[in-house]
Amino acid sequence: MLHVGVNGYGTIGKRVADAVRSQPDMTVEGVTKTGPDFAAERASVAGYDLHATDEDAVDAFRAAGLDIAGTVEDLVDASDVIVDATPGGVGAEYRSLYEAHDTPAVFQGAESPDVAEMSFNARSNFEDARDAEYVRVVSCNTTGLSRLLAPLSETYGVKKARATLVRRGGDPDQSGRGPINDILPNPVEVPSHHGPDVQTVFPDLSIDTLGLTVPATLMHVHSVNVTLESAPDVRDVRDLLDAESRVFLVPRRSRIESCGELREYARDAGRPRGDIWENCVWEESITVEGRDFYCFQAIHQEADVVPENVDALRAMFDLADREESVARTNAALGLTD
Amino acid sequence: MLHVGVNGYGTIGKRVADAVRSQPDMTVEGVTKTGPDFAAERASVAGYDLHATDEDAVDAFRAAGLDIAGTVEDLVDASDVIVDATPGGVGAEYRSLYEAHDTPAVFQGAESPDVAEMSFNARSNFEDARDAEYVRVVSCNTTGLSRLLAPLSETYGVKKARATLVRRGGDPDQSGRGPINDILPNPVEVPSHHGPDVQTVFPDLSIDTLGLTVPATLMHVHSVNVTLESAPDVRDVRDLLDAESRVFLVPRRSRIESCGELREYARDAGRPRGDIWENCVWEESITVEGRDFYCFQAIHQEADVVPENVDALRAMFDLADREESVARTNAALGLTD
Amino acid sequence: MLHVGVNGYGTIGKRVADAVRSQPDMTVEGVTKTGPDFAAERASVAGYDLHATDEDAVDAFRAAGLDIAGTVEDLVDASDVIVDATPGGVGAEYRSLYEAHDTPAVFQGAESPDVAEMSFNARSNFEDARDAEYVRVVSCNTTGLSRLLAPLSETYGVKKARATLVRRGGDPDQSGRGPINDILPNPVEVPSHHGPDVQTVFPDLSIDTLGLTVPATLMHVHSVNVTLESAPDVRDVRDLLDAESRVFLVPRRSRIESCGELREYARDAGRPRGDIWENCVWEESITVEGRDFYCFQAIHQEADVVPENVDALRAMFDLADREESVARTNAALGLTD
Amino acid sequence: MLHVGVNGYGTIGKRVADAVRSQPDMTVEGVTKTGPDFAAERASVAGYDLHATDEDAVDAFRAAGLDIAGTVEDLVDASDVIVDATPGGVGAEYRSLYEAHDTPAVFQGAESPDVAEMSFNARSNFEDARDAEYVRVVSCNTTGLSRLLAPLSETYGVKKARATLVRRGGDPDQSGRGPINDILPNPVEVPSHHGPDVQTVFPDLSIDTLGLTVPATLMHVHSVNVTLESAPDVRDVRDLLDAESRVFLVPRRSRIESCGELREYARDAGRPRGDIWENCVWEESITVEGRDFYCFQAIHQEADVVPENVDALRAMFDLADREESVARTNAALGLTD
Ligand SMILES: NC(=O)c1ccc[n+]([C@@H]2O[C@H](COP(=O)([O-])OP(=O)(O)OC[C@H]3O[C@@H](n4cnc5c(N)ncnc54)[C@H](O)[C@@H]3O)[C@@H](O)[C@H]2O)c1
Ligand SMILES: NC(=O)c1ccc[n+]([C@@H]2O[C@H](COP(=O)([O-])OP(=O)(O)OC[C@H]3O[C@@H](n4cnc5c(N)ncnc54)[C@H](O)[C@@H]3O)[C@@H](O)[C@H]2O)c1
Ligand SMILES: NC(=O)c1ccc[n+]([C@@H]2O[C@H](COP(=O)([O-])OP(=O)(O)OC[C@H]3O[C@@H](n4cnc5c(N)ncnc54)[C@H](O)[C@@H]3O)[C@@H](O)[C@H]2O)c1
Ligand SMILES: NC(=O)c1ccc[n+]([C@@H]2O[C@H](COP(=O)([O-])OP(=O)(O)OC[C@H]3O[C@@H](n4cnc5c(N)ncnc54)[C@H](O)[C@@H]3O)[C@@H](O)[C@H]2O)c1
Repeated sequence: MLHVGVNGYGTIGKRVADAVRSQPDMTVEGVTKTGPDFAAERASVAGYDLHATDEDAVDAFRAAGLDIAGTVEDLVDASDVIVDATPGGVGAEYRSLYEAHDTPAVFQGAESPDVAEMSFNARSNFEDARDAEYVRVVSCNTTGLSRLLAPLSETYGVKKARATLVRRGGDPDQSGRGPINDILPNPVEVPSHHGPDVQTVFPDLSIDTLGLTVPATLMHVHSVNVTLESAPDVRDVRDLLDAESRVFLVPRRSRIESCGELREYARDAGRPRGDIWENCVWEESITVEGRDFYCFQAIHQEADVVPENVDALRAMFDLADREESVARTNAALGLTD
Repeated sequence: MLHVGVNGYGTIGKRVADAVRSQPDMTVEGVTKTGPDFAAERASVAGYDLHATDEDAVDAFRAAGLDIAGTVEDLVDASDVIVDATPGGVGAEYRSLYEAHDTPAVFQGAESPDVAEMSFNARSNFEDARDAEYVRVVSCNTTGLSRLLAPLSETYGVKKARATLVRRGGDPDQSGRGPINDILPNPVEVPSHHGPDVQTVFPDLSIDTLGLTVPATLMHVHSVNVTLESAPDVRDVRDLLDAESRVFLVPRRSRIESCGELREYARDAGRPRGDIWENCVWEESITVEGRDFYCFQAIHQEADVVPENVDALRAMFDLADREESVARTNAALGLTD
Repeated sequence: MLHVGVNGYGTIGKRVADAVRSQPDMTVEGVTKTGPDFAAERASVAGYDLHATDEDAVDAFRAAGLDIAGTVEDLVDASDVIVDATPGGVGAEYRSLYEAHDTPAVFQGAESPDVAEMSFNARSNFEDARDAEYVRVVSCNTTGLSRLLAPLSETYGVKKARATLVRRGGDPDQSGRGPINDILPNPVEVPSHHGPDVQTVFPDLSIDTLGLTVPATLMHVHSVNVTLESAPDVRDVRDLLDAESRVFLVPRRSRIESCGELREYARDAGRPRGDIWENCVWEESITVEGRDFYCFQAIHQEADVVPENVDALRAMFDLADREESVARTNAALGLTD
Repeated sequence: MLHVGVNGYGTIGKRVADAVRSQPDMTVEGVTKTGPDFAAERASVAGYDLHATDEDAVDAFRAAGLDIAGTVEDLVDASDVIVDATPGGVGAEYRSLYEAHDTPAVFQGAESPDVAEMSFNARSNFEDARDAEYVRVVSCNTTGLSRLLAPLSETYGVKKARATLVRRGGDPDQSGRGPINDILPNPVEVPSHHGPDVQTVFPDLSIDTLGLTVPATLMHVHSVNVTLESAPDVRDVRDLLDAESRVFLVPRRSRIESCGELREYARDAGRPRGDIWENCVWEESITVEGRDFYCFQAIHQEADVVPENVDALRAMFDLADREESVARTNAALGLTD
């Protein structure tokens, strides 16, 4: 049983905690919170041992009627491994603490790649994480692109990938974030930093990305073009993607034409928090023009990296090979066709 | 066991079906769908017998691989009672079908009050629905206002209620609805129709409402003022509301300051579809200035009428008194403090 | 000729500069900018002398090809009066500089009232600003409420005013502000600080306000209730408001039902920047129920305080009485019926 | 003097009327309105002769105090040419009326291309409209793409163009349009109809487009990739685009990073209605990677087709050659560098 501590119990951290707990070969040692609030209360009700990120916060937790099992240092010490889901840049500051306790760690996408030995996507480079002590799960957008590019690259070869990332402005609970009524090139510079991030997973891939931000909170949508090395039949490409366990081909008969309906589908299916762990690729959008592949895919930013974190843990601790780990993660989460 | 048919399996219908199914004394006889889509597929997977709203649709269902148990007429015939959750105005057209089959029915808020014998809110007039054949559950906004006004009115007396309803423009899956970037007086006329709707529940209450529509999908927010007959202590008012099982007092310590965080709280708590069945009244907003009571409350439009439908069924069929019905509904749903 | 310096050339500052320039009895001595950008370039093209807020910025301006006439200190020295339209709190820091140069100043609404000798609204307390050295023009929301309350209070007496302010989340060029998809009680506490701000203009008025923020950028909308001392005929109230030069009664025949259409109307009318300096009160919303007056009004946050700044200058320097000043300001701006 | 009738006085029609009126060689014969509203009132104040679209409407206009100069038929008869800016599909229905009166016409982008003899973009195919009786000005998006592709194609040759069009959901006054909080592939099918529309202007161009719709009203934003026939220096490409009179290169020093700031810039510049007639290409986004050109451009949907309509009129009536017409149009509008 792998004992996993979760440092940073926010959007990603709380989902990773739940996902880890649902696995047969892992358990949550505890989670950290910077102060008492509704998320801390829910964590406590859910039975997670709360650890305060600093001494001063302990009194605030007590005042709120919440038990504290210890400090973040205690948690790092007691855990076999830490999943660090603190805000971008904070993880890097924590690394020395993890090292001091000889505790391996998984970092998230907003950290710079050099926070870890390798950048991870289960579908693309699972084996490279074997025995690594510090691993970084790539961001939601990079995870989404990697899952799409891996099979295309393996099967047809990629001459050049181009993607326009139409990004949600904030998560549903981040009411301070905008824009309210704008479409922002973000960054204005082309290509964006997302391409190089994909190259941390596929070092030899030629990819140019453009990023925009819009007033929506539900999902990112990618407009993807891949110039392949060959000119496949569109049905074969569809079948190829359909065979991927973390790609959901949105069928025409579902009449799903929006992110809102995708998320509604997940809510109807009883998914925890209405989460969609898979890339959602619209079947009707899959097109091949000569060697040019096109599609639209929607990425649930709060959810897609969650199974990746679980697999990263298995790779690091040699608990299973890729196929077995992905199958186990998916089964435990209820991510099935 | 009460056999309940659900006609109109949309936002409200699917939730009422799930709520009915979770009750110990009711079961879902079947649901209707106008055509195959993701919601029909989920209904089928969930084990609900699908009924086609017209013959022509049957082939479309078959083509989509969905079994059809019969027509809407078959369902009306086989059910002890219908919950009609079709779009506003369609319910009224269905009433003659229900009558022809001697099947009582519960209608929803967008129907005109005269579609039914009475307009229902469990907290306010449960007993009046006893043995009624046709009952209308009032709208999400009216339900929210009724739950708040009932205890205030009983305990302190209401001289005049005034509410500004800041309404969400559409549900999350309704991508065709606006506005995108506007604040609309809606209706421009004052007072709005919401006040008279509240008076279908409280005939003698003096209430003026003003409606607005804004670009948000998560919840409505009400800005409420009630001039009471007496001048209570604010703590007593808070305790009064806290004692209501379908009012959730949002505590200051939760640090919840937005609808997004309220819904996040419900998602974290594992509520189905992230639903909030209760009025959410911000504790800090509860204010008494002389005889003037003020507060903000958020109303999850997709959810608050759901337990009301269940209670309406019990009232009509004399299955329990108010207290017992509400307790049973809440327990089955997991609506607990 | 009054020589007016504008310190803080942002949303409000640039409009006040243009308004001052259009007046027969005032001229713009110069404006300040913190650094070169498109607004600085436009100011320069428009012929305003640019003053750098600090020495370091001077080089940046030169590099951008923009001439600098001096520093903010030079401008304060050369001007008869400063209109300070810097961000909230910055004005207070500048006050000692203004005093050091014996230069009177007009501050804006985000400053605390004690930054100045009095808080100003032309319609309500013009004469109180006569000969004052430091005056604060109240915020856009308070200006809007004051213009409405002044005639009601004078003619019928106000027993109690209550207003729910549905506020735009940000101005159109503030892409960093949210919310994207939420309705925020803001502040959660009731009553909000807007009521006390109205009382800086009407010290004896009884008023309770509630504030909300929504994802819109065009205008604020107020839902207003005023319990009057008497029970007037609704037509008289309508006529009373119609006679106010800075209240625009939106007629039914215009078919304007949104803020978007109001702003479109201003754009069609050739108003500079599509600005609406008047309160926009929907005629159909004006209602009297006994002694209770109700209405909806939309307030263009970027514009309504602009004529007020001009009038404040005339009051301070004794250039005209209220009627004459308001008439002159309106005529110069093109604010006519 | 060319006498121009404007049929359909909405977003596009009113702007074309103002643009025509500002030209030295054209005059507005009159405009049509379906009923009285604020736009009709503004048209009347602006001095345009109103024509009712049907007899029944005449009384309504009179009741609203608006003079009617005649019917749409009278206007078609009296005009040398009609600019038809009615909603998509309505123009096609009008064509027989125009023919019956032997009145040439300019149609807009939502009409099917076969409504006219040719589809027009001033920069790309001005001469092809010479002496044509029925011309269609392509849509706002196609106009924006054509202006960018024309110089690239002429100078470097285009092997393949690919564009993702992130479209605004509605115009600012269209409060009924959504989405509120979504990112919609629209259409879901790839490629979208925009590519073939570009091919009505450039028949031999290879182009694939993907369309999305988002909750914003200010501008469309295009993410553009063009694989060129050669590999130019990025500075040359920048200079090439900078030389285009209807392309505005947004300079880095302006610090403009959003559509809101672009529109603010136009408001500050005193542009009528804050309109931007040019493509806005972010200078920093212009990139060349080998033969791949990339950029972001923002397109003000309400404005970019306006000068095109004026030029189409000159081409049809042989009033000037392209260079002269574009220069005259730009000068009259105030569209200058
Ligand atoms: N939200 C997304 O869409 C998303 C998607 C994929 C990856 N990520 C990545 O996940 C990481 C976390 O992002 P998030 O969205 O979950 O952020 P979040 O803000 O929701 O959560 C961060 C949590 O860390 C806590 N925290 C802050 N400072 C801390 C400290 N010093 N010690 C311990 N905890 C601290 C915060 O209280 C919060 O609970 C980032 O690297 C981000 O890029 C986020
Ligand atoms: N959505 C809300 O916020 C909300 C809240 C409270 C009450 N209500 C009320 O509930 C009722 C339903 O609203 P909704 O939001 O669930 O609408 P919806 O559009 O989500 O669902 C209506 C369903 O009825 C189906 N339908 C349409 N025509 C039909 C017909 N002829 N026969 C059978 N089914 C048909 C539709 O396919 C759809 O599945 C309305 O009276 C509404 O006012 C809605
Ligand atoms: N925007 C509105 O809706 C609105 C409405 C009414 C009143 N006001 C009030 O007007 C004031 C200004 O608000 P705004 O919206 O125009 O803000 P803004 O941010 O648009 O403009 C402020 C300007 O001040 C400049 N500035 C910043 N620091 C400065 C300094 N140290 N010295 C000189 N200039 C400096 C900024 O560069 C900017 O140009 C505030 O008090 C605000 O409350 C704003
Ligand atoms: N709005 C844009 O973003 C945009 C951009 C480029 C091109 N266009 C094209 O311009 C055309 C008009 O679009 P719009 O946005 O101006 O629409 P709009 O709705 O703003 O204006 C259409 C006008 O036509 C009037 N009208 C309706 N039926 C009529 C009839 N039978 N006879 C005469 N007038 C009638 C309407 O009252 C309205 O004033 C469309 O082809 C559209 O595709 C629009």
